[in-house]
Amino acid sequence: MCGIVGVYCDDDSFTSRIAYYALFSLQHRGQESAGISISGEDFKVYKGMGLVNEVFDDKTLSRLRGNSAIGHVRYSTTGESKLENAQPLFVKSKSGSISVAHNGNLVNYRELRRELESDGRVFLTDSDTEVIAHLLSSYLLKNEIEEALALLTEKLCGSFTLALLLNHMVVGYRDPMGFKPLCVGKLENGYILASESCAIDSVGGELVRDVKPGEAVIIEDGELRFERIAESNQKAICVFEYIYFARPDSIIDGRSVYSVRFDIGRTLAKENPVEVDIISPVPDSGTTSSIGYAYESGIPYIEALIKNRYVGRTFIMPGQRSRELSVQLKMNALKENVRGRKVLLIDDSIVRGTTSRRIVDLVRKAGAKEVHFRVGSPPIISPCYFGIDMSTREELIASSKTVEDIRKAINADSLAYLSLKGLIKSVRIDEEDLCLACLTSDYPVEVPGEICLRCSARA
Amino acid sequence: MCGIVGVYCDDDSFTSRIAYYALFSLQHRGQESAGISISGEDFKVYKGMGLVNEVFDDKTLSRLRGNSAIGHVRYSTTGESKLENAQPLFVKSKSGSISVAHNGNLVNYRELRRELESDGRVFLTDSDTEVIAHLLSSYLLKNEIEEALALLTEKLCGSFTLALLLNHMVVGYRDPMGFKPLCVGKLENGYILASESCAIDSVGGELVRDVKPGEAVIIEDGELRFERIAESNQKAICVFEYIYFARPDSIIDGRSVYSVRFDIGRTLAKENPVEVDIISPVPDSGTTSSIGYAYESGIPYIEALIKNRYVGRTFIMPGQRSRELSVQLKMNALKENVRGRKVLLIDDSIVRGTTSRRIVDLVRKAGAKEVHFRVGSPPIISPCYFGIDMSTREELIASSKTVEDIRKAINADSLAYLSLKGLIKSVRIDEEDLCLACLTSDYPVEVPGEICLRCSARA
Amino acid sequence: MCGIVGVYCDDDSFTSRIAYYALFSLQHRGQESAGISISGEDFKVYKGMGLVNEVFDDKTLSRLRGNSAIGHVRYSTTGESKLENAQPLFVKSKSGSISVAHNGNLVNYRELRRELESDGRVFLTDSDTEVIAHLLSSYLLKNEIEEALALLTEKLCGSFTLALLLNHMVVGYRDPMGFKPLCVGKLENGYILASESCAIDSVGGELVRDVKPGEAVIIEDGELRFERIAESNQKAICVFEYIYFARPDSIIDGRSVYSVRFDIGRTLAKENPVEVDIISPVPDSGTTSSIGYAYESGIPYIEALIKNRYVGRTFIMPGQRSRELSVQLKMNALKENVRGRKVLLIDDSIVRGTTSRRIVDLVRKAGAKEVHFRVGSPPIISPCYFGIDMSTREELIASSKTVEDIRKAINADSLAYLSLKGLIKSVRIDEEDLCLACLTSDYPVEVPGEICLRCSARA
Amino acid sequence: MCGIVGVYCDDDSFTSRIAYYALFSLQHRGQESAGISISGEDFKVYKGMGLVNEVFDDKTLSRLRGNSAIGHVRYSTTGESKLENAQPLFVKSKSGSISVAHNGNLVNYRELRRELESDGRVFLTDSDTEVIAHLLSSYLLKNEIEEALALLTEKLCGSFTLALLLNHMVVGYRDPMGFKPLCVGKLENGYILASESCAIDSVGGELVRDVKPGEAVIIEDGELRFERIAESNQKAICVFEYIYFARPDSIIDGRSVYSVRFDIGRTLAKENPVEVDIISPVPDSGTTSSIGYAYESGIPYIEALIKNRYVGRTFIMPGQRSRELSVQLKMNALKENVRGRKVLLIDDSIVRGTTSRRIVDLVRKAGAKEVHFRVGSPPIISPCYFGIDMSTREELIASSKTVEDIRKAINADSLAYLSLKGLIKSVRIDEEDLCLACLTSDYPVEVPGEICLRCSARA
Repeated sequence: MCGIVGVYCDDDSFTSRIAYYALFSLQHRGQESAGISISGEDFKVYKGMGLVNEVFDDKTLSRLRGNSAIGHVRYSTTGESKLENAQPLFVKSKSGSISVAHNGNLVNYRELRRELESDGRVFLTDSDTEVIAHLLSSYLLKNEIEEALALLTEKLCGSFTLALLLNHMVVGYRDPMGFKPLCVGKLENGYILASESCAIDSVGGELVRDVKPGEAVIIEDGELRFERIAESNQKAICVFEYIYFARPDSIIDGRSVYSVRFDIGRTLAKENPVEVDIISPVPDSGTTSSIGYAYESGIPYIEALIKNRYVGRTFIMPGQRSRELSVQLKMNALKENVRGRKVLLIDDSIVRGTTSRRIVDLVRKAGAKEVHFRVGSPPIISPCYFGIDMSTREELIASSKTVEDIRKAINADSLAYLSLKGLIKSVRIDEEDLCLACLTSDYPVEVPGEICLRCSARA
Repeated sequence: MCGIVGVYCDDDSFTSRIAYYALFSLQHRGQESAGISISGEDFKVYKGMGLVNEVFDDKTLSRLRGNSAIGHVRYSTTGESKLENAQPLFVKSKSGSISVAHNGNLVNYRELRRELESDGRVFLTDSDTEVIAHLLSSYLLKNEIEEALALLTEKLCGSFTLALLLNHMVVGYRDPMGFKPLCVGKLENGYILASESCAIDSVGGELVRDVKPGEAVIIEDGELRFERIAESNQKAICVFEYIYFARPDSIIDGRSVYSVRFDIGRTLAKENPVEVDIISPVPDSGTTSSIGYAYESGIPYIEALIKNRYVGRTFIMPGQRSRELSVQLKMNALKENVRGRKVLLIDDSIVRGTTSRRIVDLVRKAGAKEVHFRVGSPPIISPCYFGIDMSTREELIASSKTVEDIRKAINADSLAYLSLKGLIKSVRIDEEDLCLACLTSDYPVEVPGEICLRCSARA
Repeated sequence: MCGIVGVYCDDDSFTSRIAYYALFSLQHRGQESAGISISGEDFKVYKGMGLVNEVFDDKTLSRLRGNSAIGHVRYSTTGESKLENAQPLFVKSKSGSISVAHNGNLVNYRELRRELESDGRVFLTDSDTEVIAHLLSSYLLKNEIEEALALLTEKLCGSFTLALLLNHMVVGYRDPMGFKPLCVGKLENGYILASESCAIDSVGGELVRDVKPGEAVIIEDGELRFERIAESNQKAICVFEYIYFARPDSIIDGRSVYSVRFDIGRTLAKENPVEVDIISPVPDSGTTSSIGYAYESGIPYIEALIKNRYVGRTFIMPGQRSRELSVQLKMNALKENVRGRKVLLIDDSIVRGTTSRRIVDLVRKAGAKEVHFRVGSPPIISPCYFGIDMSTREELIASSKTVEDIRKAINADSLAYLSLKGLIKSVRIDEEDLCLACLTSDYPVEVPGEICLRCSARA
Repeated sequence: MCGIVGVYCDDDSFTSRIAYYALFSLQHRGQESAGISISGEDFKVYKGMGLVNEVFDDKTLSRLRGNSAIGHVRYSTTGESKLENAQPLFVKSKSGSISVAHNGNLVNYRELRRELESDGRVFLTDSDTEVIAHLLSSYLLKNEIEEALALLTEKLCGSFTLALLLNHMVVGYRDPMGFKPLCVGKLENGYILASESCAIDSVGGELVRDVKPGEAVIIEDGELRFERIAESNQKAICVFEYIYFARPDSIIDGRSVYSVRFDIGRTLAKENPVEVDIISPVPDSGTTSSIGYAYESGIPYIEALIKNRYVGRTFIMPGQRSRELSVQLKMNALKENVRGRKVLLIDDSIVRGTTSRRIVDLVRKAGAKEVHFRVGSPPIISPCYFGIDMSTREELIASSKTVEDIRKAINADSLAYLSLKGLIKSVRIDEEDLCLACLTSDYPVEVPGEICLRCSARA
């Protein structure tokens, strides 16, 4: 759960600004830290904790001159929130300056690190990105970038979409499974790579196309080329980007995220109709599917809940009373809209169920006659090992409870999930090209302690 | 354009937290500064520049102990953004500690200040709130609070809704015209006053009722009483609170803000129907009226635009290219939703028209066949002198242009405003009890250089 | 215990820099806060907590443009360390902008404030400087500055050396007793007023002369004039400026501070000879008098103690062991210099005696055969009410103990103080023109609860 | 020019405090950054830019729990002032956690780094300390610490006094030449290693002895042992520690720094007598030798110059006038002491001569009849490559000018330097055991581009 960008711009005073704006558009992918590496007369890295606009100001961006840059916004999946883990990582090597921005998660990180340590290598961070930098440095000793990426691909297991800055060269790379997205845009006087197309829009660029799984995009001396690095016999595109994570105005692997969510809502309406007076999203995650559901069903779309636009940044104070207050702080029910009515609430997913329960109670307390709940995805039953921060299996309510049990737990009058088939139909990508592990427990690569059906199949 | 609160709580370690949460819910009313005054064993004031959660942390709140408190969030109407202008203002006087939080604007501020200065008085800030503190101190020398407020009311001209902390006493007061709102809530173990009822909801309180124009609410020794201070022959409730300013989940003077906006949308649909494929809000200001319009017209509500949730806090860099980029940063058009379609955009109001133009162009560029525009209020033709930050008359596009000229200026295929009658009907408050000056140029109190029809009538 | 400056400079971009450098040279007079008021096209005030170079940077100084300025460094005499108490104080009044920087202490502050409050006046700070601003504003309503200062002098009781900025006019004033110093310097293209002449030296100016007690210096339209405001029948120049407080390179009321301290050392040697191997100061307060003692006695000046140059800014951590460590942190004994020797330590004064005890022990522990102690002032027996931060009477060791008792308490082999006569001889100012209250209990103005011999005399 | 410490303490809540206090006492060795690594239940590093008391506060120290710690204060010898260069450096390796604090400079740093890079290694900083960490990690793969240090010694060329924290083990090591000092102290419940003995005094410890060149001190499981790691046929103890760098209250390699400087002053008086009225130090660097000169010559020690105690931390503003002012800001001449007198100024050394010139002018302008200058060291003619920040040869005034030329350049009536013989006599360490390269151009190890007489001898 991170966002990455790469930029080449003829005007070396504008490159860092483009990277800044692009990262700003990817802020939803990570709020913990932000950073930019840039290569001009010298090589500079600037990063800090916090939001993009907290880390950078005009003065800082003015100092970051150069034609080539990469950037990163980080979402902390571990509890550790430290500046040293902020990206891009920057190292100096025999081949010169190497900067790495990484979106994904290496399943064999510990193993790789142990191997490198046995060689006397030392590590300054706890991030799997440092392992990537070490390997890349070794491979680049005797190889061009294409071959080095191929060697890296053989070594790494897990998800890794990368933006690299190698001296003046900008490189984007997507692992052969293609877990996490990456796309390329054309600027008036340069190119941009980004996790999502909304970043390209935000800087006035044109989407060229998605980088394919196993493909690299290389910008050298102002020229862009695509290179196939590794065969991609089997893809594993993360379905959760469509369900929840990506911005609705992005187009990922050819599919509009808004359209997918709208279709999810329509499919949900067909699969699980319900007689209610109004349809309301759980804001903001359920908005688009609610609009789709209302469109399909003809039932009025009227909000039952209002979200405090500033809430994302508050801290919750210790103590029981404070915790109770915290629910009310984030959302408020609209009494006039729900009083005496049958209300359908729609959300994109249910993880632990505790928030859903509080929301249902809020709407009931505001006077709703009935509160129904629909979910824009099948039940989440297994953890993600490829970069999405879900709970452990113990915390996933659907890993141990039936739908009826969950309905009771969240205190809804009725509850229904989207079917897996309905989801795939809405996404409109072949089932075998999607990673659905969190919904099916079927992991596309071997994860210690988890069953990997496809691996078995391959074996 | 500020938010104020007053709190009395039996548990002196919780008072500042309630004030904090309440201010947090009123954050939309002012983002420049925040502050809390509290009266316990001693009298403390803490204020700072920035958002409520930037100014306060748990440690600070823990130190602010006492049973009585008032708070303030400030929206800077002048260019001057200085800590010394942050509220609540706190002074010491013969009558003890006086702290003032003010929502409104004094039309005769300069005159009053000159008068006080002629007496040798000195001023440490440029705020009209300091004038209020001076007068209050003088009146309290020989009078009880009720009489002091009555004397103050005779002296002040303009809008003034106040939260006062006088030693241990919490006082709320609304000027006889009642421009800006104030309501009272009951807590489990205390009371709360707030600009909007959403703040009462946020701390789990129950709305008791609105404070009436000319009425004071006084909390002394844990007892709350209402006192009529001044006759209110003629009210001037700000209609813009309903149109734009207040949070949709608030109830102001008995009317749900969401319902008013929803009805505005419905009325607009009846007054100005249009044949389109989809209805989309200009996010977020046009959301509720769009839902109402869609409800009334039966045309699908599908978003044409997505707003970057983080954009509120960004800075825009200097330079032409940066300014152009800034439009794209705030919003993105959803190509798949608008391509080849007739789109109706709805916003709450048009001030200068430049943003509306950019949004229409964005939707056109994304492929819309036609772009129509509807506005949830009549044209704004006159500036506000009572606390809403509108442009000067020169900048108000509707002050000099016809609707057809504005349509051309914003490049829409059609444009229509809500009628004044339609607005009043949607608000459901008697016309004579509303301040409609920005829409009619008819000011409820005399403003130098402006015509005051009602004053003439009274004279 | 504060430092004040006033500057007039033809070059409006240099005025604030001169004030900055001058304040920097007066840093020893106050480390809590620093501020500058400047009058150019508009009137600006900038102040902050901390050292001069922490509060100001080049950017800030560049923005403070104007020809006239005053500045202040504050030493907190109360425990309260708040920005609102930082000076210069700035108010707006009928007569325009008034900014006040004050060195001194008003004995009748409470009384004056009560009087003003009875008139309905309000106060935003707890500082006696705000009372001065109120009175000044009132007097300036109908009077020129000279008359206003005369009226102020009649009203105020205590010590008050002032730097004022009244619109574009810079004014320096010293109360008729002349407690705290003020001198005037000539710059290449302007004038400077400062608490001490070292500030004039630091900006390359020439000392013109001291401002006399009861005299004002007024800089208006680039012209400087002296004005006698009040008769000064009886002076009370603070002797502690010479003993401890002022910088040794300053000349105050015609006397070099270094020379006074050197002479104190010589006199001490004559009054209280002792047979020792080396003479060492308690650094840094005893340095100059030790050099004088060594000069007079012919005994070698060799340091027994080294002070950590960075220690002034450290914090001492809680806990007994930390407190013990803190002594060692500030100073270290030079074993090689004291081992087996008779050592004479000289300090400027003894307040509570605890530090002196620790220092004597430190030197003993380092191997000294004998440790003798000499003090460059008579015993301090009474508190100061005019601006020097001494302990209350209970804490002054000499207020209740004999010299022999003190010798035992600090564990010295012998102890002697300078005689009052010896002090006066060293200062070379007439006894009746000095304030010696802390050494004699004879207060020059009436202090509630203290005996005022001179007042009695006058009565 | 850095300071290092190592601490073992039985009380794990006190270890970081001891390290803090010790670093505080070594603050003169580096003001750019400070840091502590500590090993308890886990391994923590905390470092920051600025002074020790700016980087650490009580809360931070409370969180740093453990029995073993090392610390570092850094003086920036390069222009680059970055957090990433702050020490201790911390890496994770096969052998566990390795933290390194380094005082010295590696002459073959570039070469070693290139060698490691050829192996694919990557570097995150520009510091030679990272090279040490890499090598140490490799050597520890198969060796105990003693052997690893021996291997390291064979590899490194230059000066390297180290404090290491290897998991729970604290190690101090001094290269076989012994350029930079290191000593060991005994605490009530533990041990301390430090660059200078003043740090041991500051925490109430007892100096055990200096670590010898080529010797390591290892604290493991609370037990301390010394280990000889490398033969030390030829030492090169930095003479500048005695002349200028170390604190006067430290004892280095058995010699009191104060005594050395005092003896330098006495020797100078014998070698270069002069007929003057007063002897004054250039504060603070010339203080001790001035006292020694006065002692030997019998001429009165009276200060001609006063230093502003706060000046160390100021910034100097751009512009010619500001630069001129800056001289006056740092020091002021005492007119009464120098007027009409013959003055002898003594400083520890002259580097570029510009400051000496300004000081002489200052004293002349204050009225001195004659100004003579004596220097407590021979002329500095060659740069230091082992950690002392001197100018390049071009900037060293004595590298190209005769003493008479220098006298003219600094505008003194007479000028004399201490002889090399006089210096060695004062230090009382065998000439062959000292590094005198900056005074003789005879480098103890081969430096590219410099002549190494001893190497030649060895060859």
